[in-house]
Parts: sequence; structure tokens; C-alpha cells
Amino acid sequence: MSKEIGITISKEEDFSEWYTQVVLKAELIDYAPVKGFIVLRPDGYALWENIKNIADKKFKETGHKNGFLPVLIPESLLSKEAHHFQGFKPEVFWVTHTGDNKLIERLAVRPTSETLAYEIFAKWIRSYRDLPLKLNFWNSALRAEIKSTKPLIRNSEFLWQEGHTIHESRDEAEKEALMMLNIYREIIEDYLAIPVIVGYKSDREKFVGAEYTLTLEALMPDGKALQMGTSHNLAQNFSKVFNIKFLNKDNEEVYAWQTSWGISWRLIGAIVMTHGDKHGLILPPKIAPLQVIIVPIYYKSKDKDIIMEKARKVKDLLNTNSIRVEIDEREEYTPGYKFNHWEMKGIPLRIEIGPRDVNNKRVVISRRDTNEKYEINDEVILMKVNELLESIQNNLYNKAKMLLESNIHEVYNYEDMKSLIEKGGFIKASWCGNEECEVRIKEEIGADIRVIPFNSHSNNNCIYCNGKGRHIAYFARAY
Amino acid sequence: MSKEIGITISKEEDFSEWYTQVVLKAELIDYAPVKGFIVLRPDGYALWENIKNIADKKFKETGHKNGFLPVLIPESLLSKEAHHFQGFKPEVFWVTHTGDNKLIERLAVRPTSETLAYEIFAKWIRSYRDLPLKLNFWNSALRAEIKSTKPLIRNSEFLWQEGHTIHESRDEAEKEALMMLNIYREIIEDYLAIPVIVGYKSDREKFVGAEYTLTLEALMPDGKALQMGTSHNLAQNFSKVFNIKFLNKDNEEVYAWQTSWGISWRLIGAIVMTHGDKHGLILPPKIAPLQVIIVPIYYKSKDKDIIMEKARKVKDLLNTNSIRVEIDEREEYTPGYKFNHWEMKGIPLRIEIGPRDVNNKRVVISRRDTNEKYEINDEVILMKVNELLESIQNNLYNKAKMLLESNIHEVYNYEDMKSLIEKGGFIKASWCGNEECEVRIKEEIGADIRVIPFNSHSNNNCIYCNGKGRHIAYFARAY
Repeated sequence: MSKEIGITISKEEDFSEWYTQVVLKAELIDYAPVKGFIVLRPDGYALWENIKNIADKKFKETGHKNGFLPVLIPESLLSKEAHHFQGFKPEVFWVTHTGDNKLIERLAVRPTSETLAYEIFAKWIRSYRDLPLKLNFWNSALRAEIKSTKPLIRNSEFLWQEGHTIHESRDEAEKEALMMLNIYREIIEDYLAIPVIVGYKSDREKFVGAEYTLTLEALMPDGKALQMGTSHNLAQNFSKVFNIKFLNKDNEEVYAWQTSWGISWRLIGAIVMTHGDKHGLILPPKIAPLQVIIVPIYYKSKDKDIIMEKARKVKDLLNTNSIRVEIDEREEYTPGYKFNHWEMKGIPLRIEIGPRDVNNKRVVISRRDTNEKYEINDEVILMKVNELLESIQNNLYNKAKMLLESNIHEVYNYEDMKSLIEKGGFIKASWCGNEECEVRIKEEIGADIRVIPFNSHSNNNCIYCNGKGRHIAYFARAY
Repeated sequence: MSKEIGITISKEEDFSEWYTQVVLKAELIDYAPVKGFIVLRPDGYALWENIKNIADKKFKETGHKNGFLPVLIPESLLSKEAHHFQGFKPEVFWVTHTGDNKLIERLAVRPTSETLAYEIFAKWIRSYRDLPLKLNFWNSALRAEIKSTKPLIRNSEFLWQEGHTIHESRDEAEKEALMMLNIYREIIEDYLAIPVIVGYKSDREKFVGAEYTLTLEALMPDGKALQMGTSHNLAQNFSKVFNIKFLNKDNEEVYAWQTSWGISWRLIGAIVMTHGDKHGLILPPKIAPLQVIIVPIYYKSKDKDIIMEKARKVKDLLNTNSIRVEIDEREEYTPGYKFNHWEMKGIPLRIEIGPRDVNNKRVVISRRDTNEKYEINDEVILMKVNELLESIQNNLYNKAKMLLESNIHEVYNYEDMKSLIEKGGFIKASWCGNEECEVRIKEEIGADIRVIPFNSHSNNNCIYCNGKGRHIAYFARAY
């Protein structure tokens, strides 16, 4: 592979530049004409489709239905919940005209749909019989990124899903918010092979308008934390503003309880960062649009027919066993070029079939994650492919888990925190619960509270003010 | 069902009012806060998901891949192809600010993506090896509707798909445009049970920027035509403006050939109009999110257990045979209420199970389209359900086909045309091919040329100017 086509820098040397090269050269994304916006190319979109299909199935199994909400939201509606509006206001794209006509009221291009959704849901809900209402929306959200953007991680428009649910009781809303967190964890850990730490956001970091926010935080190989998804218990904060009331079983009119939750295409960025290497992408088999690529190798045309015949047999065998497989039949490229091409694309397994493999009734299988090669007899191809796909999935998860665990530093004094934060990773420390300490730490060493694990009571003093500790919190510098 | 819940007017009495009541009361849509915009409720979105899944499968089988393009398009890009821009300009929603900052250049909220897509695709294409490029985008498009809007038929934002392909030759682009027309026809006729007339748009009615537009036209029961989808051969009109060039096999740099094509949620509106009746929706089984609803009927609690047991058995039987089925287990509603509810929702078959049905080892099956009821022995339930679903699908298609055929009027003089157009339907007439006659007819009797069928040479004189006829054209008043 020529220098321009291949990745020209290692992950360790310059992580940011490496990442940009991979997402561009593996053809996941391209830049759009407007700064901060990107395009998803077919290989990027196929990853999003896979994530979407997995999530959508889990959402439906847990009683959620999909709907559609318009992309334009009147300013008066967006500003109804004051905190919420303050949070989004600086980032809103405003529509002011249609054709040559100035609009009477500005319209926001959807930064998130809480306000629009709840204005409409309020009309649908009359009694407890209409509850719970559990809806989800697959769409894109727009928030102008004035600072630095990074493809898939921070863009002015991103693909995501936003779930919105309405319940009879506080308890039910709490359970829903937690259930969605767990569904996200399954998707991210079991399919994307990325371990996460889950728990609460601090009040300062929570969603504007939520009572509390649950979060999933992963650690990228450069030592920075990445928020993978959030699930909010909105309590009655919005229902009181949008007048979402219902007659309960005692025939009393009461305000409803709500949640909202979302994951975005940022998860694709996390896959790239977590698993990729100097040759490009490495895709976890469970999420890979293509799991096996077969490369026929012949230099004499007399070999072509028997090799292609075998390649098709292997493809059919794997295909009928629900393995996603293709043959690279392109005549205009060499096997070497094809090897590099599919390595860049991160396909978990490559099967090579040459003249000698036909004679010896075997194939050569090469795994993308470790580069190991195996000569496999024809009769065990299916078994071995299944075994290797599982092994790759586990290996990728375990490697990421080791990275995470070896980069959680428990500290008991601020000096240690200051020096350790420079090495990246999570700093696990006691915190008094006061926002002042949180803000000072952020200002002084650039680390946020990323997550406060469930039941994390502290017996030590606050890492900053030395006052009584309340929580064990995970601090990190973050994307 | 009380008057407010049920449809209060017949399809024949006031078609427009009937339609609005059905889409609202069957809970397909609701109005959004901004005029001209609507929300898709879960039952409406489930229909869109089914259409999408059928289409997406066919697109992928014919070599197309999905991608994502941003919703905002710079004005300079949108205006690059002059005719195209003139066509969309009056309808564009313009973003002028982010937060408090005025943008240097206005951004259009996607009215369609040709210009943005082609600016980007030009960078991806170097040689014939990169062709064909066949991409599709599932998104929403925005075009400000200043005149009257109608839910799902004409809104300022609509869900759709836009396909964009790039080819080496004119011939290949022609074949692609025609193939997509045929795929659309399969979806609309075989799944939605709506017959269409296919062919060309006139130059006046074609897509702005296309060399020609292929269209599918259906006839609604009020006698108005509805455009169901279009497929455009763009020839080199955009490739020359956006500089989409490639090295061909003879190593010459040449401009590429292009197509674009789309269907929208308007298809849901067409299903409602075509098949619905005074009790609400009637869904063709192939597209119905739910095909069979089981209503258990018991008035004494002692009957409940055995009836529910049988209901579950029937559900499992149908479920394992890929029939989409649910039991309406709600305790708070009467069987009569449930019957009306599911009739409104258009579910093709209802299975009633009462105490006597358990004793007699049978069920009662009622079909939505004809209201016929059948007593079916337990052992033939599966066979009968399959048979009835097929029969409903065919019956709906045949009824619509009859309506279409009995409302195509072949005319040979303009006076007949003028009087017949008042009755609605298609007027099949000879046309000289001059836009002047087309415009005059439109002005005088409100009818457009909807479609010029393939190979429609005329031996008669033009219906308007009496000059030499060139085509047989289908005229109609339309949505």
C-alpha cells in the first residue's frame, strides 16, 4: 500500500492525527462543505445501521415504539423550560426566512426534541390508561460547535436516537432510566467490545432540565474519557412546564414523570479509537458489516476457475450459517493490494485461497486483531471461523478492559492527582459533593467529574478541600 | 364507538374531511406546532418502517448502499445549477444565525441533496473503477408549503429516500432510472395494493435539472391523480456543473452520467385514501404492521382462563408462521369497543374467541375489507388465515384497479375533455408536444399532463390545437 493510501503515523505517536487518517482512509466519513459537518460514507453508515438495528430491537423488546418529530422547533417552545433553553441557546441554528419571507417567529433546527415532543405528548395523555408512553426517534440533532470539532466525536450535526418516556410514578421513571442505561451497556460492552463505567453525572454535568443523568464513560487509548451515552430522569421538571397531566387510578389529576435517553454515532468513533491500529480499523465481529473477506490468489489464468469455485463454496457455507462474507473478485488489483485494503477496513477475518490450498484441501485464515495465520482443513472451516470470530470479539474486549483497568488511579491527595492526571486515565478520588471543588479542579487540572458510580459512599476526605467526603468520583480529561 | 372517536363523515360525502379524520383518529399523525408540519405517531411510523424495510432490501439487492448527508447546504452550492435553484428557491428554509452570531453565508435546510451530494461525490471519483456509485439516503426534506397542506400528501417537511447514482455511460444511467421505476412499481402495486400508470413527465413537469423524469401516477377515489414516486435521468446536467469527471477505459477524462430517484411518506397517504372506508383505515396485509388481532370475549371471570389459553395458542401458532399477530388483553375495554378500535386501525383480520368457540373447537374470523365473518375449525386456522390475508391483499388491489380503469376516459375533442374532467379521473388524449397547449389546458380546466406512457405515439390530432399529435398523454387534476 502506498504511503498516501496507508496510515502514515502510529496510534502512539500522534493519536489525534492517527484517528483522523483512519476515519478518512477507511472511508467511514468525509468532510462536508460546511465547517463542523461530516458525511457518512457507505462503510460508516453500515456501522451505524448495525448499531441501530441492535439497539432498535432491544428498544422494541422493552416496549418502545418509534415515531417522527419535525426538525424545526419554534423559539417560544424551546425557551419554555428556562434552564434547558439556557443550555442550548448558544448552539442553536436558527431558521429566520422561507424563500424571501421573514418568519414571524424564529425556528430552531432540532438541538434535541424534549420541548417539541412534550408539547405534543401533553395532548395525547388523559388518563393512566394512556401510560406509560414510551417513544423513540432516530434522527439527527444540530448543535453548532464553535470550538474544535472531531469527526464522529464532536460535530455540528450528528445521527443519534432520542428516547422519551412518560410514566405514572417517580419509581417507574427511575426504573426506566436505569433499564435504558443497562441496555446501552449491553450494546456497548457486548457488541462494540468497549468496557464502560456507569453511574451518575454530577449536578453540574447533568443534562439541562434533568433531575439526574446516568452516564456510561469509556476510556480512549490516549487517556481521555469519552461519554458513550446518557439516560436522564427528568422527574416532573418538564411535565410541570408542558402541562403533562393525567387522571390517576384514584381519579386525581397529577403531573407525569419522564425520562429521556440517547446514544449517537459517537459510538463509531469510540470503536475506531479503541480497537484500531497502524493498519487501520479493527471491527468487533458482532458489529462488523462484513466479518470475513475471501481473497482468491491466482497468477495463472488456468488456476482461476478451480480457485473461484472453491471460494464460492466457502462463501456459501459461511453465508448459510449467518456469517457475513464476501469474495473480493476484483481483477484489477493484486492480492497484496487487497490484503491492505481489507486490513484498513478492519474486516475481522481474511480467507486466502491459492492453487496449493485447492490441492491440499485447506484454506489460510488470517485474523485482523493479532495477525495470526492458520492453515485450516476444508472440513473444519465453519467451526474454525465461528471460533475465531468469537475469539476476536473477546480479545478486543479484554484488551480494552485491561487498558481501562490499568488506567484507573485511586488517589488520596491532590498532589498525586495533579501529577497522575498528566498521564491520562481516570482518577478515582473522594469528593465532598460541592460544586466549588469540582469547578476548581476543572480549572486547575482540566479534569471533570465523569461519573459517580452507584452506591459510591466515601469514608475519606474530599481530594480538594479536605472536607468530609461524600462520593467516590471518577475524574478525567475528556472529549 | 362514540361519535367523536369514530369517523363522522363518509368517503363519498366529503373525501377531504374523511381523509383528515382517518389519519388523525387512526393515530397515524398529529399536527406539529409549526403550520404545515406534522408528527408521525407510532402507528404511522410503523407503516413507514415497513415501506422502508421493503424498499431498502430491494435497493441493496440491486447494488445500492446507504449513507448520510448533512441537513444544511450552503447557498452557493444550492445555487450552482441555475434551473435547479430557481425551482427550489421560493420554498427554502434559510438558516441565518447560530446562537447570536450571523452566518457569513446562508444555509438551506435540505430541500433535496443533489447539489451537496454531487459536490462531495466529485472528490471520490477518479476512474471507471470507482463506478458505478449507487447511494441512497433515508432522511427528511423541507420545502415550505405556502398553499394548502394535507397530512402526508403535502407538508413542509416529509420523510423520504433520495437515491443518487453515477455511471460511466448514458445507457447505464437510463437503465438505472428505469430499474428504479420498476422497483417502485413493485413496492406500490405488490405491497401497497395500489395500481399505477408509469411513463415520462412532460418537460414542463419534470424535475428541475433532469434530462427527463419517469413517474408513477395513481388515481385517488376522489378522482384526483397522485404522484407516487419519480426517477430522474440527470444525464450530464449536474456532472458538468459539479465537475464529476472520470478516466474511462480509454484513459480519457469524461463527464459522468447520473440519476436520482425518490419515494416519500406520501405513500402512506395513498394507502389511506385508496383503501380506507367509513370505519377508518384498511391496511393491505403485506404492509400492515399488525395483520391479525385476537379479541378474547368473556363476560364471566370463570371463562377467562380457558379463553386466554386458547387465544395464546392461536397467537403462537400464527406467530411461528411469520404472521404478525397480537391479543387485545385490555381489561378496561369491552369487546365492542375493541372491535371498533381495530377496525379504525385497519387491521386486516380479527379473530374472536368466546366461551362457545372454546367448546366447539373453533374461532370466528372477520375480515376488515368485506366485513365477512367465518366460523373456522381449530385445525384449519393457519390455512384459513393465510388464505384470507392473500385474498384481502388481492381484493384491495383489484378494487383499486377497477376504480383506476373505469376512470380513464379516452377523448378526441376538447369539449368532451372539459366536461369529463369535472367527473375526475384520467383523460387520455393526443398531445402535440408543445408546452403552450399544455399550459392552456392547465389554465382552462385545471388539468396537468400527469404521465406520458412509454411508446405512446399518437395518430390523432392534438386535443387542444388540433395540430399533429405526438403523444398519448394522461391528463388529470392532481394533488
